Parts: sequence; C-alpha cells; structure tokens
Amino acid sequence: MKALVYEGVETLVFRDVPMVAARPGEHLIRIRASGICGSDMHAYLGHDARRPAPLILGHEAAGVIEDGPQKGRRVTINPLVTCGSCTACASGRENLCASRQIISMPPREGAFAQFVAMPDRNLVTVPDNVPLEKAALAEPLAVSWHAARLLLEALHPNTERHALVIGGGAIGLAAALALRAMGVKDVTIQEPNAARRAFLTDRCGQQAVAEFQGMVPLVVDAVGYAATRAAASACAAPGGVIAHVGLGEDIGGLDIRRMTLQEITFIGTYTYTAQDFRNTAQAIFDGRLGALDWPELRPLSEGAAAFHDLRSGAVAAPKIILSPWA
Amino acid sequence: MKALVYEGVETLVFRDVPMVAARPGEHLIRIRASGICGSDMHAYLGHDARRPAPLILGHEAAGVIEDGPQKGRRVTINPLVTCGSCTACASGRENLCASRQIISMPPREGAFAQFVAMPDRNLVTVPDNVPLEKAALAEPLAVSWHAARLLLEALHPNTERHALVIGGGAIGLAAALALRAMGVKDVTIQEPNAARRAFLTDRCGQQAVAEFQGMVPLVVDAVGYAATRAAASACAAPGGVIAHVGLGEDIGGLDIRRMTLQEITFIGTYTYTAQDFRNTAQAIFDGRLGALDWPELRPLSEGAAAFHDLRSGAVAAPKIILSPWA
Repeated sequence: MKALVYEGVETLVFRDVPMVAARPGEHLIRIRASGICGSDMHAYLGHDARRPAPLILGHEAAGVIEDGPQKGRRVTINPLVTCGSCTACASGRENLCASRQIISMPPREGAFAQFVAMPDRNLVTVPDNVPLEKAALAEPLAVSWHAARLLLEALHPNTERHALVIGGGAIGLAAALALRAMGVKDVTIQEPNAARRAFLTDRCGQQAVAEFQGMVPLVVDAVGYAATRAAASACAAPGGVIAHVGLGEDIGGLDIRRMTLQEITFIGTYTYTAQDFRNTAQAIFDGRLGALDWPELRPLSEGAAAFHDLRSGAVAAPKIILSPWA
Repeated sequence: MKALVYEGVETLVFRDVPMVAARPGEHLIRIRASGICGSDMHAYLGHDARRPAPLILGHEAAGVIEDGPQKGRRVTINPLVTCGSCTACASGRENLCASRQIISMPPREGAFAQFVAMPDRNLVTVPDNVPLEKAALAEPLAVSWHAARLLLEALHPNTERHALVIGGGAIGLAAALALRAMGVKDVTIQEPNAARRAFLTDRCGQQAVAEFQGMVPLVVDAVGYAATRAAASACAAPGGVIAHVGLGEDIGGLDIRRMTLQEITFIGTYTYTAQDFRNTAQAIFDGRLGALDWPELRPLSEGAAAFHDLRSGAVAAPKIILSPWA
C-alpha cells in the first residue's frame, strides 16, 4: 500500500510500505480521509520524542471496512486504543488508561496511508448522507468537545456563560463550535493571524478578534504556549475556568497568584472519552457543529507540500484533510 | 486600646492606639484570641504590598460583643467583609466579591488589638463550652475546609479518595483535618521540617512524611511556592485534582505538559464562602475537626517575639494564638 512516511525532521515521503496486518478482533479499513493535526506537525518538526522516524503519522481518519462480514461499512475512527479493563476505562475515562495507545505512535502506525487496522470498538458508523471527509473531523472535534464538556462541568452553576477561545486553529474553532452546541451563546476566538481570522469570520461564522479585552468565566487555551496561558489566566474572570488543550510548551505562563486570589480553575485536557467521541460523531451527523465545510482537501500524495504550507503559515483553513486514493 | 502595630519591615510594637469605632450595623468586639497567619508573616517581612505599615495585622479572631443589646455574646469572626449584593455574593461565593475587604488590610485594621468592629453578619455564636482560643481557629480552618470541599467536588466520582497535603503548617494540617471530616480516610502530610513533622505525628495524630513517593488523586498545595507546585503536579494521579492555597511565589512550578496529558485539574482557592465559614465553625464546635489543642498560646504583648520565633523556625506548633488581655 501507499503511505506518507515521516523519515526525519521535515521529511515526508509518499511511497510503498508493507500492507498493514489486522490483529484478531480488528478490521482492515480503507482510509478515505485523514486530517493533519498539530501533533503531526510537532512530530514532523522533530519535536515529539514519542514519534520517532520512520513512522506513518495521522490519526484523524474515516474510511470503509475493506473485508469480512462488515465489508462496506462506512466508519470514523477513534484512534485511542485502550485496555478496556483498568479503573480509568471502567469509569469511562479511557483517555486516562495507563496503557493507552494511539495510531501514529509506536507500536501503531498512523492513518496517512491507504489502510489501517483498528479494533471494532473504535469504530463509529457514518450515515450514508455524511461525507467521509466530514466524518474524519470526529477526532479533532472530540478533543474540543471533551474540553468544552469539562469546562462547563467545572463552572459554578450561577455563572454567565461567556467564553473566550485562544487560538483559531482546528481545535480552537472546534471548541467554539462545541461550546455553541452546548448552549454557550457568546463565544469569541482570539487569533492573531489576520488571514485565519478572516477565514473564521467569513467562512465559519465565528466572532474572532486579534486580541481579546476583558474577562470571561470560560476560557479555552487551544494553543498551549506560555504566552497563551498567560493570556488565559489574565482573561479568566474571578471564579472562572480554563481548559488547556495544547502541548506547545511544557511549563510557564500561568499567573498563579491571580488564579489563587481569584479562585480560577485550570483543567489539563487530553483527547476524549469513548462516549465523548461517539457524542461528537453524532453531533457532526445531525448538524449541531455546523456545516463543517472549512477544511481544505488535498491528495495524500501531496502531503509533504501540505505540511510545508502549514508550517509556513500559508494555509488560512484551520485543517487540511488528505485523501490516500485521490 | 492596646494593639500590636506593624510599623515597618520586621518591626512590631505593642502600644496604645485610638479606640476602634464601630460603623452603623457593626458590633464592637473585645478580642480574646487572635491567631498569627502566614499572610501576617508575609506582611511583617514587607512582602505584601496590600498591607503597608503602619497597620494592625491579624484576622483570625474570636471574642465577646462589648456593648449593646447583644453584650456578652461570644463570637468567632469571619473577617471577610463583602458587599452582599453582587453576582458573586448573590451566588454564595462571597470570597469572589470584587469589593471584598478583610480586616488587617486597609481600610480595615486587624485583630491584633483589644477590640475590633465587625458587621453582625460576620459573627458566628460560639457555644459556652467551646474556648474562644479554639473558636479563633475557625478562620484558618475555613480556608482549608473550602479548599477541601472544592477539591472533592472536582474529583471524578469513581476515584479512590487518597490525599496528599503538601506543607504541615496550620493550613496544611487543617486541610488534612477537613479532608478526614469529609470522609477521606487516607491523608498524608508532606512536611520537611523534622520538628514540625514530629509534632504533626505525635500531637496531632497525622501521617506525616519528609518526602512523599507515589501518586494520589487528591493533592493540596498548602504552601504555594514553585517547588511545592512542582511536587503537586508530579504527585497528582492521572485525572486527579490539585487545590492550591498559598501565595508564596507568583508563578512557576507546574508541569503543564504532564497536567495536560494526564488531565489534572488545578484549583486556585482563596479564603472561603460565608457558608464554608459557618460549616467550619460548626465542625469545630461538634468535634469533627479533632481536639484542636495544637496551637501555642502567647500574650499579644509578646507578639513581636512570636513573629521572630516563627520566622526563625523555632516553633513546632503550626499556629500561635495571641491573647490581647493576658
């Protein structure tokens, strides 16, 4: 099969690789759409020790079961493979499973390929009227759905639900969409890149500003750098909550003194539970997350150029989705 | 009246000051017991810009109403004076009131004095069988009660309730007592000072260690320095919660990457709600917080020496309570 292989820092090659083999209980899936994530970019730049070259990246994918009794079933893929039996899994917090794996990280190859193999329980059926390119958004949207859910669960009930999302990439945009789907009417995205800000406003119907002024009870840091955490802890209203998604920089930025005096909560969030993933897929299918027509579609064979363009800031769309069969 | 006046860095003088005047709706209270807080120590060292000299410090006090229809009523004092009408106050989060005042900070003088004046709604009646020295602990114990409550409210329900408290001063010890009163059976205090550790074990019946090994779902940072926050974020189990009480250092320490990947929540907590204060006082009165026989009692006239001894690490007891009439 063909795959886009990460072979070293800033080096991606579209080439033949051995056909993936399905383990017992797994399905072989023909990938039809596979989105590029910020974490793929981290790996591509050599910044992720968990993803050493050579490796097939990619974990935001949808496709069709290739063979067996379920041949032809259209599915979107939850890429987190968890044990299913530990305390975390048993309490519905599979994302905290100590033995969690994710495709695109050893020992599991990723979805920038024509096929992947996945356990049945990781698959969610996609209705016939939903394009697989849209269904492939379930993974990044689930990250933000999970963060938005934790954010709202932590908020004191008698609080006005105004929100700021820092960062207008896919995770930030998806957080804004998830918050709106959960009933938060006033959501602003802070995005310094003018082209992306215009895209968010004109193509995605979002309220976007270069720099937010004021304070709100709900803040999502969808970037994860010291500077964005500093902004988050400055913009959170007294008694407010920050959900933090990114892995940009490991430490620093939070104004702990202010957070203590003003009783601000900071929640580190990572991926999603299996239920969050299913709920997100359903929200995609029934339109609650909007038209989702904002990704840019490209062939996987041109994946190296897509990474290059993303890296240079030349892409206004918050997401590029690659097609292995285009 | 006599008061212990903070006159400059590391300078406290016990001397005559003008008699305090009660505003309309306030009671004049003869102070019988007034504890020394870490924040008094910060001010004494010149580290708190909110508390400029000259100033009467002290905000952990109990006494007796001096005159009027309620003359002789024994009371413990909630030192937070809030507006009572803003959104925060209306939703029972008085500690987030934007116009909150606390005695010992301008414009309100503190309780290291023979008298203070307080609004009626700040007073909780102390039963005759409870010594006022014990009732004066309501304030610091309420700080920890509030932190423990927020900690447990944020914890996922299907989680084993093991707790680590970092710092064995009054706030740390009180957090351990509050957690136990709330049903957490396994609580360890990390305290590097050997004399204080022995005091916690032998006099207070606590489990105390010099350095904690392992991870627990519940962590209280009762110190608030970068080093203790680093310990807190290393010892919090995946999906766990940190409550952070101190104002030692403004920034740094948290391992944000780990908190994000392991979905750890950090709650800045400050003081207490009016209901927390009343609940804490009740828990003191009915014995749920233990014997509370661990403070050291000294005359207010020797307050300067008490601060000096605390500063030099010569005091094993986690709290000194001063008596203005001894």
